[in-house]
Amino acid sequence: MIRDLRICFVGDSFVAGVGDPEHLGWTGRLAADSERAGLPLTRYVLGVRRQTSAEVAARWAAECTPRLAGGAWEPRVVLSVGVNDTAHEDGVPRLAPDRSVAALTGMLDRAAAAGWPVLVVGPPPVADDAHTERTAALDDRFAQVCAEHAVPHVPVVGHLAGNPTWMREVAAGDGAHPGAAGYAALADLVRPHWTAWLAGRTPQR
Amino acid sequence: MIRDLRICFVGDSFVAGVGDPEHLGWTGRLAADSERAGLPLTRYVLGVRRQTSAEVAARWAAECTPRLAGGAWEPRVVLSVGVNDTAHEDGVPRLAPDRSVAALTGMLDRAAAAGWPVLVVGPPPVADDAHTERTAALDDRFAQVCAEHAVPHVPVVGHLAGNPTWMREVAAGDGAHPGAAGYAALADLVRPHWTAWLAGRTPQR
Repeated sequence: MIRDLRICFVGDSFVAGVGDPEHLGWTGRLAADSERAGLPLTRYVLGVRRQTSAEVAARWAAECTPRLAGGAWEPRVVLSVGVNDTAHEDGVPRLAPDRSVAALTGMLDRAAAAGWPVLVVGPPPVADDAHTERTAALDDRFAQVCAEHAVPHVPVVGHLAGNPTWMREVAAGDGAHPGAAGYAALADLVRPHWTAWLAGRTPQR
Repeated sequence: MIRDLRICFVGDSFVAGVGDPEHLGWTGRLAADSERAGLPLTRYVLGVRRQTSAEVAARWAAECTPRLAGGAWEPRVVLSVGVNDTAHEDGVPRLAPDRSVAALTGMLDRAAAAGWPVLVVGPPPVADDAHTERTAALDDRFAQVCAEHAVPHVPVVGHLAGNPTWMREVAAGDGAHPGAAGYAALADLVRPHWTAWLAGRTPQR
């Protein structure tokens, strides 16, 4: 029995793979890996630059529905948001943490109602350390929301902040986005959780 | 002056790159080429499997707007539809040619109103010759619509129907979608038009 997996990758510029000259991003690397492992899948990339969790929450269901609903296939969603929430504008976060948590909660509730299994990938670090600290704090709250929804959550901000490749590429780029090697490092972090999630089980900790 | 190009690739499964184990499709190959040529761009891939021109027309503007509107960048659209229109169901095309033409016309009118330059890539051939003949006839009408809108149109159905790599991969796959080499061949056909379009001029015939 060949599986017909159709997966929407929902989120921000990091989901869109901005900055990767190879135009794969972390989502394309994971998908190509799955193909090599004998598990082909349809990949719909729905990342939009600069969007906060609330902005993603306002559009994601309308975009996922024509791609996922109503067919004899396995619909799934990978969700990654938050970096734009914690960016400061005029000295305050673009989105207050409580609103970020509410946006994620609403998306997980709606995905559960639609019958779409979700994997949440936490937001990554940027060149601005204070911004990254706010992101890490928000991601701790995201992890709690995911646990409450029995949805797997992959924290990446701490690992990547200590990854010289990621931090060097971000600094050499626009201060936020890495290049090909950075996205490969992010894919490496997500891979064990992704593989376990596709197999329908939760990864061993 | 570095350009900030943001391009939505709108259409069906061929735009989504279905069947390519490398997960680049023709759109990823063109974008990676542009990067190598020193012209980075944000690539938003908005192809949805099985969708007719009318189905694409019903969603594309809502999806392109948050990605293209309102910023200090160059918004553009690459559009490719039609193969699903000419597929037969119960002995008749899923979408009548007049409705396909109306859908394309409506999209080009709306893109012009939004100030989004468009490049139209014609629909490709599949394994079923009668289906491909209907596609070729529809694409002739699409070419006329594009000419009336002063929008560049890249016909590919005839070239690819005579391309052994494309036809072999389609036959070896699901009868519609090629693999990596077929998508590379499609990218090769589009490339001169794409390059000229990005440069803001129309290609020499």
